[in-house]
Amino acid sequence: MPSLHTALLQSSGRPGDVAHNLQILEDAARTAAATGAGLLVCPELFLTGYAIGDGIHRLAEPADGESARTIGRIAAEHGIAVLYGYPERAAQDEPDSDAVYNSAQLIGSDGSHLANYRKTHLFGCFEHEWFTPGQQPVVQAELAGVRIGVIICYDVEFPENVRAHALAGTDLLLVPTAQMHPFQFVPESVIPVRAFENQMYVAYVNRVGEEGEFEFVGLSCLAGPDGVVRARAGRGEQLVRAEVDTAFLKESREHNPYLHDRRPELYGPLT
Amino acid sequence: MPSLHTALLQSSGRPGDVAHNLQILEDAARTAAATGAGLLVCPELFLTGYAIGDGIHRLAEPADGESARTIGRIAAEHGIAVLYGYPERAAQDEPDSDAVYNSAQLIGSDGSHLANYRKTHLFGCFEHEWFTPGQQPVVQAELAGVRIGVIICYDVEFPENVRAHALAGTDLLLVPTAQMHPFQFVPESVIPVRAFENQMYVAYVNRVGEEGEFEFVGLSCLAGPDGVVRARAGRGEQLVRAEVDTAFLKESREHNPYLHDRRPELYGPLT
Repeated sequence: MPSLHTALLQSSGRPGDVAHNLQILEDAARTAAATGAGLLVCPELFLTGYAIGDGIHRLAEPADGESARTIGRIAAEHGIAVLYGYPERAAQDEPDSDAVYNSAQLIGSDGSHLANYRKTHLFGCFEHEWFTPGQQPVVQAELAGVRIGVIICYDVEFPENVRAHALAGTDLLLVPTAQMHPFQFVPESVIPVRAFENQMYVAYVNRVGEEGEFEFVGLSCLAGPDGVVRARAGRGEQLVRAEVDTAFLKESREHNPYLHDRRPELYGPLT
Repeated sequence: MPSLHTALLQSSGRPGDVAHNLQILEDAARTAAATGAGLLVCPELFLTGYAIGDGIHRLAEPADGESARTIGRIAAEHGIAVLYGYPERAAQDEPDSDAVYNSAQLIGSDGSHLANYRKTHLFGCFEHEWFTPGQQPVVQAELAGVRIGVIICYDVEFPENVRAHALAGTDLLLVPTAQMHPFQFVPESVIPVRAFENQMYVAYVNRVGEEGEFEFVGLSCLAGPDGVVRARAGRGEQLVRAEVDTAFLKESREHNPYLHDRRPELYGPLT
């Protein structure tokens, strides 16, 4: 059975400075790959910063833009897949070509574009001002025999979104985030419960420190299907790493048949 | 705004001995009422015991049976509402009149029958052998200005069931349970997260000690909409109490607009 060593880059980079953040990303990719990781996960809007006001629109790039190509080069050079958050400008041939999304893109270890997710559940006034909500709840890709899913921050606080991934077979759910004070309860308690109730691994990767009006709480973690946290960061900049073990996942699912025991015919009121 | 002092009776009583368990229930009702509680919550199948094999069918009673009348008398005498678990024999005029359900009934402080819930998500071989699953996911009643909901044990581990209660306006969800080793993660982590993600109070009331092949883990608790546990029992027989504060609940909901921010149009795959 495959296993996937996963590195979580807890960092806020330098808000507004894309070149600097790409350098941090490359340093982390090098370090993570050297310790055997096959995947590096960066926080929400890591490329540009979060609380950068109209910088969000100024620095937005399409999914195949210049920064995406740079990260593809970094991934291929160091042989490690990379998930990063960024403000995405819609493609010119899309119906709403002016839209900017709060997105996360997964680049393969060969530099290929594996998946791109647009946040469906925007949080608070700031995000509603600058972003258009995505419309596709489940985005997945295969990576080293592991089915990867991607959602962003507030999305994970809705059990419906993670359940949809479980039903679609996600093994490892990547959740770049910008989780702020006073919501420490989310990394500390909600994330392990999401992993347990859906029988999957969940990697939750946060920003840190103050940025504009926000204070990000760190506490990035990787939780397993038993609800146990394999890696937990503190409140500062940090690169932590843990293993996603698909043999353990298979065994755990046999002992916790939540998906089998669901009664979807009773869940009509949810939709 | 109303508040409801709620007492949790963590006890396994004496399996198979209904008269003895009614006596324990009455003693707890007297004690709880004397300390100002308006509601006493007992564990799953408290009336009869859980691991009593064919005793489940032998001791099953209809919702308006002799034990229900006795508990109505206890509730009225001590002026406290009571929620108790019991094996319910279907009424004779029901289509499946041979069915036995794993049920919980809420009796008002005047002895009236307020609500009766039949467990919809049966757990494991034991329950599937002896019980018919219920078909009505959301059962509610008003009690002292608080909207009460009832589900049982395994039901609460499915986020769908608690979400349905949140959408129906449940303020306090009562969850009698028979939670066993090695699932301590449920009382310790899942219950506070259910309360937080659905912005409600959750009272989870467990059995204790060994019974047949099972070892019940206690750890009964009452969690609030902030994810904070107000009362927590240990591993032994215990009566704990905490307050359900609807003013706090209203304020918490204003700060955590999960129900408002849902996007049900995206949740089709769940049903």
